[in-house]
Amino acid sequence: MTTAELELATTATSTLSGTPTMKALVYHGPGKRAWEHKPRPTIQEPGDAIVRITTSTICGTDLHILKGDLPAVTEGRILGHEGIGTVEQVGTGVSEFHVGDKVIISCVTACLKCDFCKRGMYSHCRRGGWILGYTIDGTQAEYVRIPQADGSLYSFPPDGDEEALVMLSEILPTGFECGVLNGQVKPGDTVAIVGAGPIGLAVLLTAQFYSPATIFMIDLDDKRLAVAKKFGATNLINSADGHAAHRLMELTEGAGVDVAIEAVGLPATFAICQEIVGAGGRIANVGVHGKPVELHMEKLWDRNISLTTRLVDTATTPMLLKVVRSGKLQPGKLVTHRFVMNDIMKAYDTFGNAAKEGALKVVLTNGGSRS
Amino acid sequence: MTTAELELATTATSTLSGTPTMKALVYHGPGKRAWEHKPRPTIQEPGDAIVRITTSTICGTDLHILKGDLPAVTEGRILGHEGIGTVEQVGTGVSEFHVGDKVIISCVTACLKCDFCKRGMYSHCRRGGWILGYTIDGTQAEYVRIPQADGSLYSFPPDGDEEALVMLSEILPTGFECGVLNGQVKPGDTVAIVGAGPIGLAVLLTAQFYSPATIFMIDLDDKRLAVAKKFGATNLINSADGHAAHRLMELTEGAGVDVAIEAVGLPATFAICQEIVGAGGRIANVGVHGKPVELHMEKLWDRNISLTTRLVDTATTPMLLKVVRSGKLQPGKLVTHRFVMNDIMKAYDTFGNAAKEGALKVVLTNGGSRS
Amino acid sequence: MTTAELELATTATSTLSGTPTMKALVYHGPGKRAWEHKPRPTIQEPGDAIVRITTSTICGTDLHILKGDLPAVTEGRILGHEGIGTVEQVGTGVSEFHVGDKVIISCVTACLKCDFCKRGMYSHCRRGGWILGYTIDGTQAEYVRIPQADGSLYSFPPDGDEEALVMLSEILPTGFECGVLNGQVKPGDTVAIVGAGPIGLAVLLTAQFYSPATIFMIDLDDKRLAVAKKFGATNLINSADGHAAHRLMELTEGAGVDVAIEAVGLPATFAICQEIVGAGGRIANVGVHGKPVELHMEKLWDRNISLTTRLVDTATTPMLLKVVRSGKLQPGKLVTHRFVMNDIMKAYDTFGNAAKEGALKVVLTNGGSRS
Amino acid sequence: MTTAELELATTATSTLSGTPTMKALVYHGPGKRAWEHKPRPTIQEPGDAIVRITTSTICGTDLHILKGDLPAVTEGRILGHEGIGTVEQVGTGVSEFHVGDKVIISCVTACLKCDFCKRGMYSHCRRGGWILGYTIDGTQAEYVRIPQADGSLYSFPPDGDEEALVMLSEILPTGFECGVLNGQVKPGDTVAIVGAGPIGLAVLLTAQFYSPATIFMIDLDDKRLAVAKKFGATNLINSADGHAAHRLMELTEGAGVDVAIEAVGLPATFAICQEIVGAGGRIANVGVHGKPVELHMEKLWDRNISLTTRLVDTATTPMLLKVVRSGKLQPGKLVTHRFVMNDIMKAYDTFGNAAKEGALKVVLTNGGSRS
Repeated sequence: MTTAELELATTATSTLSGTPTMKALVYHGPGKRAWEHKPRPTIQEPGDAIVRITTSTICGTDLHILKGDLPAVTEGRILGHEGIGTVEQVGTGVSEFHVGDKVIISCVTACLKCDFCKRGMYSHCRRGGWILGYTIDGTQAEYVRIPQADGSLYSFPPDGDEEALVMLSEILPTGFECGVLNGQVKPGDTVAIVGAGPIGLAVLLTAQFYSPATIFMIDLDDKRLAVAKKFGATNLINSADGHAAHRLMELTEGAGVDVAIEAVGLPATFAICQEIVGAGGRIANVGVHGKPVELHMEKLWDRNISLTTRLVDTATTPMLLKVVRSGKLQPGKLVTHRFVMNDIMKAYDTFGNAAKEGALKVVLTNGGSRS
Repeated sequence: MTTAELELATTATSTLSGTPTMKALVYHGPGKRAWEHKPRPTIQEPGDAIVRITTSTICGTDLHILKGDLPAVTEGRILGHEGIGTVEQVGTGVSEFHVGDKVIISCVTACLKCDFCKRGMYSHCRRGGWILGYTIDGTQAEYVRIPQADGSLYSFPPDGDEEALVMLSEILPTGFECGVLNGQVKPGDTVAIVGAGPIGLAVLLTAQFYSPATIFMIDLDDKRLAVAKKFGATNLINSADGHAAHRLMELTEGAGVDVAIEAVGLPATFAICQEIVGAGGRIANVGVHGKPVELHMEKLWDRNISLTTRLVDTATTPMLLKVVRSGKLQPGKLVTHRFVMNDIMKAYDTFGNAAKEGALKVVLTNGGSRS
Repeated sequence: MTTAELELATTATSTLSGTPTMKALVYHGPGKRAWEHKPRPTIQEPGDAIVRITTSTICGTDLHILKGDLPAVTEGRILGHEGIGTVEQVGTGVSEFHVGDKVIISCVTACLKCDFCKRGMYSHCRRGGWILGYTIDGTQAEYVRIPQADGSLYSFPPDGDEEALVMLSEILPTGFECGVLNGQVKPGDTVAIVGAGPIGLAVLLTAQFYSPATIFMIDLDDKRLAVAKKFGATNLINSADGHAAHRLMELTEGAGVDVAIEAVGLPATFAICQEIVGAGGRIANVGVHGKPVELHMEKLWDRNISLTTRLVDTATTPMLLKVVRSGKLQPGKLVTHRFVMNDIMKAYDTFGNAAKEGALKVVLTNGGSRS
Repeated sequence: MTTAELELATTATSTLSGTPTMKALVYHGPGKRAWEHKPRPTIQEPGDAIVRITTSTICGTDLHILKGDLPAVTEGRILGHEGIGTVEQVGTGVSEFHVGDKVIISCVTACLKCDFCKRGMYSHCRRGGWILGYTIDGTQAEYVRIPQADGSLYSFPPDGDEEALVMLSEILPTGFECGVLNGQVKPGDTVAIVGAGPIGLAVLLTAQFYSPATIFMIDLDDKRLAVAKKFGATNLINSADGHAAHRLMELTEGAGVDVAIEAVGLPATFAICQEIVGAGGRIANVGVHGKPVELHMEKLWDRNISLTTRLVDTATTPMLLKVVRSGKLQPGKLVTHRFVMNDIMKAYDTFGNAAKEGALKVVLTNGGSRS
């Protein structure tokens, strides 16, 4: 038997023990991951839905988890918080979705009923928030259990493209909400985005909803800057020499930017944002930070700036869906590599060497092939 | 001749040399100030007005200048950026004010024509901003030259009280704009003000425009906290033991506050704000900072908070005047000590020992007595 | 047997036929209402709760229904959309409330899951909105079925006063949301409220959250104006002579008001709002209108005004609860008459003659006495 | 001598009587206009500038004036409120502009000092607002006097195109401020613009700053609709049959639009807006109305809509300039016809027959040829 045949056989016999199984990408402690058999998820609460994953993708955060940076993730956890799929089963409390519905899975679980959800701050939902592939099993699998399904799934549009729309699970709402909305990008603005990785590029794509006049993209990697240029950046600054802030200030004749968006998560990139924000400007943080930063209040106290942080709420998903459907946003651009889910171990290798591989988003499909 | 007679005589003969003089509080380098004769100011630009000061006051910033903390202030500078007075002379470009008008002097000079002024950001006016008693001569004198008078003066209302309204020169707009507006205080909010000095109390008074449900006042000094209680604080926390943040978190059952307002300007007080701000909350900085602070982005990145800084624009002065006139705000409450201007040296001594003297705002009047 | 005894007996035997009954105020077509036996409501959907009413009240809209103005109300309907009570039973989908919880019933039913609910526009909930006592049975009864209970009930605070908090079912959120929030009342503003009935007074009470400098109250009835004075109106205008707008314009020296709030629902009162709104001002409509009005676009097109309409969403209920609990709002002031529920027919008579009786809100209690 | 030579001679001798003259388009009562000699304007107030016009254009409002619809316009008035030119002379109070500066003339005169100007509501400036070519002489001439020049002129950018930027005098800020900003167009929105004349097309161009998903353009004229299509409208509805609203409601499956923008100024077009605005939507009025309209409050009172009116403030001119310079807006598209200023009588004929001539904006240049 070939491996494929073996896998097929395994699936076929997956109910031998009475518990149907599936294949999933499982975290086994720092540095260890495996694509292995796990029991298929089942309905546990009335608000649950079971979704069969057709498309998923890997997030930079998944790499952080694998490094052991997020100790809340325990061994045995199935990773992944992004995905498109088909509803297989729903609990008695689910009213918005039915078996057979094609859905976009949001990375954020929202009960819709708690005080935070009522304010649209789903990220801090008292029963949810970001839990998928973090404190509960995630989407890099054949099936996933989605708690609070009515608040955590979105209908996949009839004319949608899975590869494009899986970007709505997390990366696009993150760039848009944390970067663009919090940064209050306006027509005619001068914007700088620090970090041209997938998330910085998601900021770049969605910042253009508001017609800023100038978008500086700042990164260490010329290849990524070249991509940014194609995606609409008007000015590129390679920050490798440590003079990015200085250069930007020259180019803006000392005015700085209206909006500086941090899309990396390091003290050094955060420092650039502080140096380039103009009086009356906004710093919008998107990056995930692991350490404190030095905030130069002795320079900023009288500059009338605002600084924002945010875990994505995904509350703008319906708006983003409308913009995608209108053709004004093509999130599929972010996809550089494609794998079938069975090759997810290779996909991780590619994504883990993003710079070398020129990888942005790596898409995984469960296509016709079942494990 | 007594000193007083001598001074009177001096004034009487003040035009001997052809230049009329006046008395003024002059900075002579760190630690040195004198109440001495200076030439009366004259019109230099078409937009100038000369105002005869009837009431002034001392700001904490004046003490900073005297310590030498603001090197932009050069020796020989007349201090003071707050005052009420009567227009004595106007340049040809002044259209809103006439000789004899009673006016409130704003601490911020606004040309109204530059890009920042057009955005209402007078603090960064390209020809003004805070310059009074800083880079040009100020209001702790008998006369002051006010550049850009049309944008920098406000009509004193017919039924106004000078002692109350001199608080509109700086302290009330500062508390209101930097603390309350930037903090977006809303009905029902839980607010914490860190620092119960004059500026913190100005925040406290104006925060109540928006009917927050709870206002915590945090300070080291029980006397100031007692004042805060009288001014409307609902909860007091003495931070002397270093556990203020912990105590507040207990009192709010872990929720923290909707708005944390920093009204001191030190890393330690700024740190308290970071610890107590709830998810989705705002930190509004009012204090003047001399050093960087540590910003705990590793804890805040996913908390959906905003942090704002601001040099007062005084753009809300007309609004504040309306509220004062309606009786809903009594800024006179902030006045604890009164001196005639000739005793300004003593007034500085008192204000310089604010804690011991129980001093909040110290009012100076040029009343009937001329130097 | 007295009537009371008879009623008591009836209740005692209410399970005779197997269906428990209760007393309720039932609409029997225009002009006809009765306090009569009806089957007790039961759980029909997983999201339902059954609430035993302890306090209710009558709304002006109930009178409209009785006149036959709202043809969507069919014969046999139990009226009432305001109430406080205790949860008796919950469906399997209810997660926020449990048997025994004391609750405030919102006049608006919100599923929290539809597009409108997600925008906080519960009034247009695709499964709810205003349905209680309108298209489904209401709260003027001993028991009521509340669909979508998780979105339509609010926890009654431990220290709450039922009589005060029943005002949060509808009248306070209506005044606040439709009048004050939509009118964007700001500190220092000049506000006019047209109509000093219960809803206009609710606007008056909640407008003061934002410290307007001046509040004109305009009404035909001096008694109601006198109440408005006690509730915080600064200026009263009796509009009986048809010159209210003219008078207000004189008093504001031609400036008009920043915010004109229509709290009646007639072309004539709407016309006053158009005449008195200043350039840059807002007209916020609260009144329920039965006819078109003439909008003087030939005068208003260049006046930079906004005009808003709104069916209350009750999304601000948590905020209002906080303000009430802080003591800054005493909604109990609106209550002028009290009846036990068994006397609801008399209560309607009183409320129906509000002007003569000096009635504002009439409170009904199911107190200790069971029917 | 040819006519041209004669004119040249006239100009050459224009100082014969001591008063230099110029050619100008003069209103002589309803239906009467002439291109004739008038004295050149001179500085009257310190804030004045004299601008030599290089480019101007004709506005629909000029046609209204010629019909006699605006009785405030007196005989002898030079028309025109749009223009580009060069500063020839400035008063002593002008600080932002100097002789030789190339400028965009705003249709709105702003003193920057009054209460309305400080709020950015230049349209209601106590010393200005729309006065040019209305209550004072305008820009359809060789020279114009611009009062309050510092607030009423904008620097022409070095790389600017006069024909494109003259659209910033009025039509673009009008479309943007009154239609797009007041309508709060957001990414993903469904927008309808009623009226595809120049102003409706200006709305269409600037609405796209915010990436709405769908833009319906509604007009009677298929030619104009075809232009709208080219300019970015996604759906066209010819309203000639009176069923435009019905059609739109079908196309939106009963939802209606998020924003309905009235760009005509008639009761019938205003009525369409009322019929198509969805719950929670906005009606933004741009059209100039001569009559009252019927507002269906009996249908709208519970629909949570807002309706706005506005005379353009031109406060967004700096923002619009930035967007034009970034290439994201090409206002030159609006220009269909070009004339030298000497042919302005013909230009009026063309613009007066806009439908037949297919005219949108008609540009007039004072080019090299002097009258």
